[in-house]
Amino acid sequence: MKIHVLKNKNIISGGNLMKYDVGKYNEKSWVITEDKFDKSYLGKCESIMSLGNGYMGIRSATEELYMGEIRNTFIAGTFNKIIENKIDKFEVTELPNVADVVQMEIEINGEVLDLTKGIVKNYSRQLNIKTGELTRVATWISTKGDEVELVFRRFVSLDNLHVIGQKIEIIPKNKNIEISLKSGINGQVTNSGAQHFLEGDKRLYEKKYMQMVQTTTQSQIDFVINTVHSFTINSKVYEPKNLILIERRKIFYQYNLEVKKEEKFVIEKISNIYTSRDIDNEGINIEELKVLSYEALKNENEKGYNLLLDNSKKMWQEKVWNNYDIEIDSEDDYDQLAIRFAHYHLTIMTPAHDNRMNIGAKGLSGEGYKGHTFWDTEIFILPFFTYTDPKVARSLLEYRYKTLPGAHKKAKENGYEGAMFPWESAWFDDGEVTPLWGAADIVTGKSTKIWSGIIEQHITSDVAFACWQYYQVTKDEDFMDQYGYELLMETANFWQSRLEWNEIKEQYYITGVMGPDEYKEHIDNNAFTNYTAHWTIKNAINYYKLLKNEKIEVFDRLNKKLNLDKVYKKWEEKVDKIYLPQPREDLVIPQDDTYLEKEIIDLTKYRNQENVGTLGKDYNVDGINNIQVSKQADIMALFYLLEDLFEKDVKIANWNYYEPKTLHDSSLSLSTHCVLANDLNNNEMAYSLFKKATFIDLGPNMKTSDGGIHAASLGGIWQCVVNGFGGIRMLNGKLRIEPHLPQTWKRLKFPINWHGDRLIIEVTKNKIIIKNETKNNPSIEFESFGVKLTINEEISFSYNN
Amino acid sequence: MKIHVLKNKNIISGGNLMKYDVGKYNEKSWVITEDKFDKSYLGKCESIMSLGNGYMGIRSATEELYMGEIRNTFIAGTFNKIIENKIDKFEVTELPNVADVVQMEIEINGEVLDLTKGIVKNYSRQLNIKTGELTRVATWISTKGDEVELVFRRFVSLDNLHVIGQKIEIIPKNKNIEISLKSGINGQVTNSGAQHFLEGDKRLYEKKYMQMVQTTTQSQIDFVINTVHSFTINSKVYEPKNLILIERRKIFYQYNLEVKKEEKFVIEKISNIYTSRDIDNEGINIEELKVLSYEALKNENEKGYNLLLDNSKKMWQEKVWNNYDIEIDSEDDYDQLAIRFAHYHLTIMTPAHDNRMNIGAKGLSGEGYKGHTFWDTEIFILPFFTYTDPKVARSLLEYRYKTLPGAHKKAKENGYEGAMFPWESAWFDDGEVTPLWGAADIVTGKSTKIWSGIIEQHITSDVAFACWQYYQVTKDEDFMDQYGYELLMETANFWQSRLEWNEIKEQYYITGVMGPDEYKEHIDNNAFTNYTAHWTIKNAINYYKLLKNEKIEVFDRLNKKLNLDKVYKKWEEKVDKIYLPQPREDLVIPQDDTYLEKEIIDLTKYRNQENVGTLGKDYNVDGINNIQVSKQADIMALFYLLEDLFEKDVKIANWNYYEPKTLHDSSLSLSTHCVLANDLNNNEMAYSLFKKATFIDLGPNMKTSDGGIHAASLGGIWQCVVNGFGGIRMLNGKLRIEPHLPQTWKRLKFPINWHGDRLIIEVTKNKIIIKNETKNNPSIEFESFGVKLTINEEISFSYNN
Repeated sequence: MKIHVLKNKNIISGGNLMKYDVGKYNEKSWVITEDKFDKSYLGKCESIMSLGNGYMGIRSATEELYMGEIRNTFIAGTFNKIIENKIDKFEVTELPNVADVVQMEIEINGEVLDLTKGIVKNYSRQLNIKTGELTRVATWISTKGDEVELVFRRFVSLDNLHVIGQKIEIIPKNKNIEISLKSGINGQVTNSGAQHFLEGDKRLYEKKYMQMVQTTTQSQIDFVINTVHSFTINSKVYEPKNLILIERRKIFYQYNLEVKKEEKFVIEKISNIYTSRDIDNEGINIEELKVLSYEALKNENEKGYNLLLDNSKKMWQEKVWNNYDIEIDSEDDYDQLAIRFAHYHLTIMTPAHDNRMNIGAKGLSGEGYKGHTFWDTEIFILPFFTYTDPKVARSLLEYRYKTLPGAHKKAKENGYEGAMFPWESAWFDDGEVTPLWGAADIVTGKSTKIWSGIIEQHITSDVAFACWQYYQVTKDEDFMDQYGYELLMETANFWQSRLEWNEIKEQYYITGVMGPDEYKEHIDNNAFTNYTAHWTIKNAINYYKLLKNEKIEVFDRLNKKLNLDKVYKKWEEKVDKIYLPQPREDLVIPQDDTYLEKEIIDLTKYRNQENVGTLGKDYNVDGINNIQVSKQADIMALFYLLEDLFEKDVKIANWNYYEPKTLHDSSLSLSTHCVLANDLNNNEMAYSLFKKATFIDLGPNMKTSDGGIHAASLGGIWQCVVNGFGGIRMLNGKLRIEPHLPQTWKRLKFPINWHGDRLIIEVTKNKIIIKNETKNNPSIEFESFGVKLTINEEISFSYNN
Repeated sequence: MKIHVLKNKNIISGGNLMKYDVGKYNEKSWVITEDKFDKSYLGKCESIMSLGNGYMGIRSATEELYMGEIRNTFIAGTFNKIIENKIDKFEVTELPNVADVVQMEIEINGEVLDLTKGIVKNYSRQLNIKTGELTRVATWISTKGDEVELVFRRFVSLDNLHVIGQKIEIIPKNKNIEISLKSGINGQVTNSGAQHFLEGDKRLYEKKYMQMVQTTTQSQIDFVINTVHSFTINSKVYEPKNLILIERRKIFYQYNLEVKKEEKFVIEKISNIYTSRDIDNEGINIEELKVLSYEALKNENEKGYNLLLDNSKKMWQEKVWNNYDIEIDSEDDYDQLAIRFAHYHLTIMTPAHDNRMNIGAKGLSGEGYKGHTFWDTEIFILPFFTYTDPKVARSLLEYRYKTLPGAHKKAKENGYEGAMFPWESAWFDDGEVTPLWGAADIVTGKSTKIWSGIIEQHITSDVAFACWQYYQVTKDEDFMDQYGYELLMETANFWQSRLEWNEIKEQYYITGVMGPDEYKEHIDNNAFTNYTAHWTIKNAINYYKLLKNEKIEVFDRLNKKLNLDKVYKKWEEKVDKIYLPQPREDLVIPQDDTYLEKEIIDLTKYRNQENVGTLGKDYNVDGINNIQVSKQADIMALFYLLEDLFEKDVKIANWNYYEPKTLHDSSLSLSTHCVLANDLNNNEMAYSLFKKATFIDLGPNMKTSDGGIHAASLGGIWQCVVNGFGGIRMLNGKLRIEPHLPQTWKRLKFPINWHGDRLIIEVTKNKIIIKNETKNNPSIEFESFGVKLTINEEISFSYNN
């Protein structure tokens, strides 16, 4: 195993088994390479090299099977819950693992291809982020001495969201070989043993096209999976002998042929997946779906792998790289790759095609978090789309609007008013889907209650904040009229009903919650929660007044629907009486009512941990609750969202107090700290935190991504670059640009959307150039380092980094 | 791979990869050996070396995992059906695959134990049939050069039906080694992708005992699985470092330790499984079951592997070998092994402990036939128990009595009266469980209808026949009074209602059925069906009269319940008008109305096939229907059951006509033919057919047993030996003994039960010795070669073989 040490040596702690092809930023920083196959670390490449397009996601398990692999294919939004009887306490709605079309069993002269056996030379597996193509090459010498050159190619189309292409080349090097290939559709896969599908029809068309139907057990979504194989030898079409193999939940072909020494045998396998949940196939019946998908496959098969891939590549260029690309001219070209890696995954994880769907905490790259949507979207991922691809941001916010009935239901069930958003959200009308019970405590045998769904209530503020942020950045009035204002009013309405009057203090408290820091359960007056609740109501008051004065039609409609006039009185009555924790004498703001009174212990051991969560091996939940230790950004997240409410010296004092007590045991912590470090001018710290944030998936720890990539962290990488080093901020509706380039960066260039215009911002050590590419606004105002400026077509000015 | 050719060379066609340890019959013919590990043939040993006790069955998959293996643990009678919604057409009730306790992941100096890698020396895997212990030994040199001696031992207790014992020894041979062991309970297993369990609690007691609860989704049977590990190094108790690993549906420990060169590290893993379906735990709640099973495990663990195994061995000796053992003094000691192999599997497949359960067509050794019971029990397996262990035979017949409500329901639904037994039977009150729809025809896309459940109606005669046979052999009046007479009346009642009056012929026909020969669907007047239906009614008439005269209490009860007097009139009215196909001029009896008119083709290719079912590759169902070809014994089965109805010349004529048209594509064919060949004095043919019958599981074809052993075939092996070569027959209630020893056999000794006495029959080339071991009857009459004889305590006489 080659150990590839990145240039910034002090950051890498373990042996990094991944290699990044980092040439000049604009040329070669596109490729992630695994240069030795190691069965112990299958999960890493399966996740970080996973393929997808927002409609589907496929973990990049190899064609041939290995023990310990996890083979997952997910279609966004196709949630199912196992509910056969009353004892389903460990089952929650989740994305079902769809039949696998990628796998193949290849035998060379009777020996099953297995790269852990025989001799492997010239191995590399590469994900090309630019094209979305995964390739794997190797020369394999079997234990019998048969030598073959192998090339595996694979992509999931960004052009046609249903299509999966595979192309395999086999060249015998030292003798003629017999090849046996078993390949088709395997529906025996499960979600770690849970099976969400009933078996459906298996069918063969024209002795060539294979089709399998699966239907989810509870949500009754039909899936149709089709696949077809084509073969050439030395570019000539070839028809090997074949045998159809049918098993339970499985339809395979076995192909047998001989390939002569130095001949090139090529297999193309084109597959597609359609479901009855597809937005363009709504109301279609299963028989129609079968025909439609089969005919689509025939069509795709005629195009063949290369043309299908070209079409997909074009879409990557148009939709992603022309649109999102950020240029980082760093001493360490890895930085360029890291932001592209984030863009790649932000693209493939996001169901931008369907506003009934949102982003899962692991995207579509693993079973972790079951495809559920958390505040990760609003606070960590949405800013990227809001600033870079507002249409997608809008779709993701429309999803929240569509989930309002569930949020109303949750509020009602808990004795509140308005919209109380689910902590975990799945299909748009599911409501709260956070599991209520975790596995039994293995020692006491009692089930552990999962509190997040009940007490992690700040999600409702997060939705309001993201909605407002979207509006301020885009000025999308249509969205606000249709959905946005209602979201702002309904979230504020929840909060006013949630407040608890404290007779002694004569203030409104919010008790018994969990803030962003999940190491503190059932705490009172979490600063993040109280401040953002307060903000939500204040903001609603502003828009109440604005609507009444300026948008009377919208006002009337909402007033009728939500009884705004009445609710408004409650807001006015209560908002200024909400208890907002204030800085102590030493300027430290209590994270909650009791945090600062808890025991302080030496956390060195846990701060230096190789893997997250080591604290849990020494302390149980109660134990952790009683220590001044934080899992993740909490006050820091508050400073990030509502930065103008707090003075810099307060921020510094709180950083100095809380950061050393924070273990960053959540992937939602490092990027927030990175941006804050930038704000506090700690540039070296910010860069170090940026690297660490990118290492959550790309770093040397080969186990961190086994359950899937970290969606919020990837959104966070964009925030580090654009909000952090790029210094972009929307404050009270105003644009502020205050870059702080890391020492090692010569230049940073990135696009943002502002009020419907696309601005290209280029930052060098002491110069900033901003171009308005689209010029919809004759002029755009912004502030930079205290100076008010205006962009017409272009502005360039120097600054002191 | 060593090719072990048996002595009788003309029978073996392929390379036999199994080796049988065949010494002198009474000493060494107990062991089946695999002497090279070949990943291509995992299924063979998993099935034929499977362990069990009738309560549970475990396929003998290796501790370490290999791709392509099938890991199954079944508990008899715990059927479940996936019925979440209306589209369950491919799901039928089946035995769920229980969490796996047998698997272990062993790492030697960081390298996962994998016998397909590195160097393997001194390998052998052996099932000792006498003790029920499976052992596997190997010296493994890892790819890094670390050499270890390995011994794996395993048994499923016949003494305590819930207990599984494992013992693993590891001795480093060339250096000190680090061992990492991951072991516990894995509930992520499925039935080929179908998951029958909801996830239940996982718990740890005393930081040592692991417990997992699973509950079936529809039948809501609770399973509690417990396991515990103990360790020694050089016989001293050792506690390795450990870490508990909890995943979805999985609870494992990881143990880490160093073992010095030449030290012996021993792992003992004792597990147990209890379910809420256990007959001795009925009505118990899950919490009680958890405590009960945990405490049982503590107790078992104190005993340890060796003592637990000793207790189980004792039970094998007492219950099985002292009771069933047959001695065959053959030139080929394999024959001795083959009958012991049958006894072994007949023991582990039979849920003798619970009369709500019956035997599955694959026992408990594989997913094939889903644990369902067919006529295989009554016609192929029950004779063994009836003659050798009548209590078990009675329990299996009581099961049929318990299924009467389902049989009534089936009759009613089909417009008939009485008891129409299910073709496939599962839990006693399930009724018919034959799937109605098979997988869609892969070409037309239309689901293929499975007709057996509707038209394979001879099962009802088979039950009646077996019941009568049991009574005649055992004279168990209590059984008849409680259950047997009712079964005889109810089956006859079905048949009288089933008959169809043919106006032209003025006879009763039975049309549109499938006989034993499943290559002929929807045929009229299948000889086997018509004759056995006729017999069933005739027999009921006899017992109607007998009860009325001799057992008036029983008669009155049944008359009241079944309206016998009225039904009897119908029997009398119809029975003699049933059409019974008669021999033609050439003495051939038509198998059905059209068989003899169908096309005759050259079947040589299919008769010489290596694997069964090759005809289906050239012909579809309709095609096969139109050829004079049989899957299995049909007329021959009729001759076997009702042998005194047919003259020898008729039998010979039919043998000569049908046998050459029979492909023996069912495992239910060879043993019947073997017994018939004996009856027809074709001794060489009989011996050849016996060998072939034993080869269905033990033979050189390494793929035949992948889906599980062939239960009926194993019962058939006993029939070949005792009914065939031993010449034992019950005819009209009389015992007949007419042995025909194969050329190569010097002596055959076997026990039979007759009218409650245990007779030991010893046959040599020209002498027969019969001892009455129990002497409950002062004298027992029998016939031998036309001579009527009487046994008092012992009789010995010469005969002409």
